Amino acid sequence: MKAVRLHGYHQQPMVEEVPEPSVKGPLDVVVKIGGAGVCRTDLHIIEGQWAEAMHPTLPYTIGHENAGWVHEVGSAVTNVQVGDTVILHPTPTCGLCHACRAGADMHCAISTFPGLDSDGGMAEYLLTSARACVKLDPSTQPKDVAALADAGITAYHAVRKAIPLLYPGTTCVLIGAGGLGHIGIQCLAALTATTIIVVDRNPDALKLAEQLGADHTVVADGNQVTAVQDLTGGTGAHVVLDFVAEQGAEADGFAMTAPAGSYFVIGYGGQLQVPTLDIISTERNIVGNIVGTYNELDELMALAQAGKVTLHTRTYPLEAAAEAVADLDAGRVRGRAILVP
Amino acid sequence: MKAVRLHGYHQQPMVEEVPEPSVKGPLDVVVKIGGAGVCRTDLHIIEGQWAEAMHPTLPYTIGHENAGWVHEVGSAVTNVQVGDTVILHPTPTCGLCHACRAGADMHCAISTFPGLDSDGGMAEYLLTSARACVKLDPSTQPKDVAALADAGITAYHAVRKAIPLLYPGTTCVLIGAGGLGHIGIQCLAALTATTIIVVDRNPDALKLAEQLGADHTVVADGNQVTAVQDLTGGTGAHVVLDFVAEQGAEADGFAMTAPAGSYFVIGYGGQLQVPTLDIISTERNIVGNIVGTYNELDELMALAQAGKVTLHTRTYPLEAAAEAVADLDAGRVRGRAILVP
Amino acid sequence: MKAVRLHGYHQQPMVEEVPEPSVKGPLDVVVKIGGAGVCRTDLHIIEGQWAEAMHPTLPYTIGHENAGWVHEVGSAVTNVQVGDTVILHPTPTCGLCHACRAGADMHCAISTFPGLDSDGGMAEYLLTSARACVKLDPSTQPKDVAALADAGITAYHAVRKAIPLLYPGTTCVLIGAGGLGHIGIQCLAALTATTIIVVDRNPDALKLAEQLGADHTVVADGNQVTAVQDLTGGTGAHVVLDFVAEQGAEADGFAMTAPAGSYFVIGYGGQLQVPTLDIISTERNIVGNIVGTYNELDELMALAQAGKVTLHTRTYPLEAAAEAVADLDAGRVRGRAILVP
Amino acid sequence: MKAVRLHGYHQQPMVEEVPEPSVKGPLDVVVKIGGAGVCRTDLHIIEGQWAEAMHPTLPYTIGHENAGWVHEVGSAVTNVQVGDTVILHPTPTCGLCHACRAGADMHCAISTFPGLDSDGGMAEYLLTSARACVKLDPSTQPKDVAALADAGITAYHAVRKAIPLLYPGTTCVLIGAGGLGHIGIQCLAALTATTIIVVDRNPDALKLAEQLGADHTVVADGNQVTAVQDLTGGTGAHVVLDFVAEQGAEADGFAMTAPAGSYFVIGYGGQLQVPTLDIISTERNIVGNIVGTYNELDELMALAQAGKVTLHTRTYPLEAAAEAVADLDAGRVRGRAILVP
Repeated sequence: MKAVRLHGYHQQPMVEEVPEPSVKGPLDVVVKIGGAGVCRTDLHIIEGQWAEAMHPTLPYTIGHENAGWVHEVGSAVTNVQVGDTVILHPTPTCGLCHACRAGADMHCAISTFPGLDSDGGMAEYLLTSARACVKLDPSTQPKDVAALADAGITAYHAVRKAIPLLYPGTTCVLIGAGGLGHIGIQCLAALTATTIIVVDRNPDALKLAEQLGADHTVVADGNQVTAVQDLTGGTGAHVVLDFVAEQGAEADGFAMTAPAGSYFVIGYGGQLQVPTLDIISTERNIVGNIVGTYNELDELMALAQAGKVTLHTRTYPLEAAAEAVADLDAGRVRGRAILVP
Repeated sequence: MKAVRLHGYHQQPMVEEVPEPSVKGPLDVVVKIGGAGVCRTDLHIIEGQWAEAMHPTLPYTIGHENAGWVHEVGSAVTNVQVGDTVILHPTPTCGLCHACRAGADMHCAISTFPGLDSDGGMAEYLLTSARACVKLDPSTQPKDVAALADAGITAYHAVRKAIPLLYPGTTCVLIGAGGLGHIGIQCLAALTATTIIVVDRNPDALKLAEQLGADHTVVADGNQVTAVQDLTGGTGAHVVLDFVAEQGAEADGFAMTAPAGSYFVIGYGGQLQVPTLDIISTERNIVGNIVGTYNELDELMALAQAGKVTLHTRTYPLEAAAEAVADLDAGRVRGRAILVP
Repeated sequence: MKAVRLHGYHQQPMVEEVPEPSVKGPLDVVVKIGGAGVCRTDLHIIEGQWAEAMHPTLPYTIGHENAGWVHEVGSAVTNVQVGDTVILHPTPTCGLCHACRAGADMHCAISTFPGLDSDGGMAEYLLTSARACVKLDPSTQPKDVAALADAGITAYHAVRKAIPLLYPGTTCVLIGAGGLGHIGIQCLAALTATTIIVVDRNPDALKLAEQLGADHTVVADGNQVTAVQDLTGGTGAHVVLDFVAEQGAEADGFAMTAPAGSYFVIGYGGQLQVPTLDIISTERNIVGNIVGTYNELDELMALAQAGKVTLHTRTYPLEAAAEAVADLDAGRVRGRAILVP
Repeated sequence: MKAVRLHGYHQQPMVEEVPEPSVKGPLDVVVKIGGAGVCRTDLHIIEGQWAEAMHPTLPYTIGHENAGWVHEVGSAVTNVQVGDTVILHPTPTCGLCHACRAGADMHCAISTFPGLDSDGGMAEYLLTSARACVKLDPSTQPKDVAALADAGITAYHAVRKAIPLLYPGTTCVLIGAGGLGHIGIQCLAALTATTIIVVDRNPDALKLAEQLGADHTVVADGNQVTAVQDLTGGTGAHVVLDFVAEQGAEADGFAMTAPAGSYFVIGYGGQLQVPTLDIISTERNIVGNIVGTYNELDELMALAQAGKVTLHTRTYPLEAAAEAVADLDAGRVRGRAILVP
């Protein structure tokens, strides 16, 4: 089969022929890929930023945002069968550790992360596990929803955690209206009645944000903290969802957070520097976020199937992976680039 | 009456005669002080650290940790009457803002802070409000419980927020077994079955910690992070309660926190510096804490009256305020210094 | 001033002249009434059903669902001033008991209930307290929102408690699409993405329900339990909100509740009869609901001002109170009848 | 091997030779039984009360409260190995349904219940699944802890759900200080500082309750509701944990519950009859409880290993199963009867 393989850091991945994967363990599932998202993290992988944390053996197939159809199942698989349309949770989990038994898939003690530490889904077929498969309505087109497998679940997870804080009359700032952020806006609008303020450098992204449910938009032109203070009567927002968290956004985000409020870190790359006096005098919280649970992906698919979350995507044939990566890197992709084998 | 008054920053407060306060508003209460705690914050006040935030008019009476007996009540006071034994919430609140209506007294939009921004309780009488009075069993000696009014409520508030995270099998690190911390240990032992690890520089403080319920103690000798990792199988603790949060404790505290865990900031003075990647890759939280609610003080008094939280105190006559302050500053006080008018 | 007074049970209340109320206590507020809702509970009051529980002294003024403008304030009132547009929480509370300090206004140990145990708001002026006043945007017409003061807050309170149970992919059954229920549907649609099934005897009510956000409607024609089972794949709903809870609805409601689900009782009049085996074998909950908190009324007004909850009302002059009561009793009112002095 | 087999309802089970079970599926585990608890439910099984709900094929082996050592494991088992000491969650679960993925094992859509619907653990060996095995310290004696597998987890689950309601100053009534209840008392004492009132008909059970942590005891002699009202200042308890829920306890339990309080149903057999007016006017909740999660069993074992929950047991050889059943039926067992193969 064809697969997009990384042979060395700081090199473009190559499309080449590799053997098809097959089921080995009783809970294994092989999925015929229908759509594989191209993510900013793929750029970071190519740059070698994840080498130390994930130490994959090169060459390997990238792609961690996948949907498709079940092609082969292990002997103990009961939740899906061959032919089912599925979207894949990014981290196949053990199902037996304390975190898995609590439903906290992203904290599984021994999960893998295909596309980061082992062969991923920019290929015709992917080997995953029964525990990663969310069964979809057969009418669903995998390429239309693949981006929910990673960008979507991450945005949804953060919004879901924030819901109890976002009762009517509150304000939520969302920094970064890109791949994750534009899903976050739709989740906020579907699940709360909070006033949504979206901050982004890009006026086009803010236009889209308004269509998706933003009540106010703020261009990040250097005065964004003041602008948010003005929109919130000087107090800041009850919740700030920071999908950027680098290049100063992390300082902005904490500064935009009201007393007793919570600053959610979702993006990464920057460094938070906060006097502990500022944390305690206002009793603000800083909340970490990573991917989400299996059930959260299932819930997000319910939102998507009800038409409450939609994705703008641009598809590329699998062979054009290099072009898709280059377009993303150059800022030429609106919404999400999806490879279709 | 006699009162301990601050005439200028970087000067010792003086005991002098001032007029007794009297009730003016319908919800005012004048309390005859039975015990007034001397707190590290009093040292900071004298040093001028709170001048900018609180801008009190000098001279004024310090003391923000008070208990006594009701001496006079305003026309609309219904919850206490003259003669009642009371402990005082540190911030008399408006009762009408959104925070007050949610029970979050410490976030009242227009509260005062006697002893910080207006005349406090190192005096024979204190003017406060009905909303600050927690009525006690008449057999209670105010000097025995006064330290719960500020040190106690702050420690209890943090522990109470952590309870849902501290189910059996978890581990909690508590940094700093001093005035607040030694109450925190007792609250943890009374309200959870978590494994308690106490970290402090002072071996004597750790001995007391063991008597109060610590399962393990760690001397903060430079190897404290490694020691906690060893005690937790390399993962860190589910919750870290940091009663120091300065001089490196804040970096230690975050490093001691397990993936999916929470680092509670209670002390202050330092600066937290954390890459956002470290926050998201492990989904850790940083939780601010400040004082506590009125009901939390009430709950803490229930714990104290059941003998589950006890205080070690050393009493001084009001006239010896300067000596008490000097003893605290020099590290000569074990437990809490209490002025008794 | 004119007021609608009840002189005896099983008699129509009469519109007559009485003295205007005036401020006595420091937290008293007199409100010029702009709209007073006519509620099913008023019919029950006239029938004497509340005599034993509330024992008001006859004659007295009824009306417990009120909005208007501040006319006079006591000396300690700081949250509103004369001229402010306000909606009134139905139970002026003490502000000092444990429930009030936790924000649970409806459990205040010593609150009053104007219109049930003392003079209410079907009059030109009403004596209430600062703690009952929610300040509104001056452009708000009291007659347009008065019904939110009791019907609205009760529906909102129940929905708000149910939100954590109603994540995407769940189903919520709402029984009774009348005065409270039609607000409940809008709250559900604004605050969750749950699938909403509305059950009512009245096909017209179900038509309105669809316009307000119901995904499915079921006529309560005797087959309603089966119909709900069919719509939920045989499991029942995650949450059932029962705004009727009499005449068999209470048995239906529990039967429509899925394993691990919750049956919310909001209406009243019937009797629940459930084997304890049925409760434990499925681990279902039965959740009581009464009115709501002050902050919940505030939040509901934010929803209303954002246009997410709207009321259908029919206004009557105060003098036509008897006609309004008769129309309600005869089922001739669509939405809510509002008296306008 | 020897096993205790039920051949017909209303007959004593017989000890007889049957083939040893062996691993078939990849997640199967065969456990050599070290202790099997004899439960009131076993009496009900013999009486045929569970025939309709569980429809087991007779004859079959009873026993649903088991601990022992791993004897054989399937090919995909990773959490335990041969020789490990284990206690068994009563319901081996699928691990793939929505409930399992949320950690709610007791709501698994397709779990089995060995000892109720298939061969159980009153035998030398039991076939179960990897997902049911909680690994214990090798020094643990299975016969000492077996009763925690069902009685223990059920009591712990209910107490754990009640913790947020049982802050200091609250009161908890516990009805029934028998097999489950005496564990519940210890869990309450270990995990909360609530005031514990235990109600039981048996003065001996109340004596034990006092030793285990009860603050007050009440003999259920007909005046128990009044006695609880007296002990709670007339309001009732914040939480009532009813381990009986039949023969009138269910009416008592609801009557003993304070306004805004919660009545937890854990026992079964009776019928709850409550006017919906009584539910809403006080906003009380009725909370169902069944078994508990895998992680809760794990947490309970942490409590047990810390010495905070201990069991009084009486052991019988497996061959004496009939005698143990007879002793339980006749009320001759203090604590729990445990069969040891």
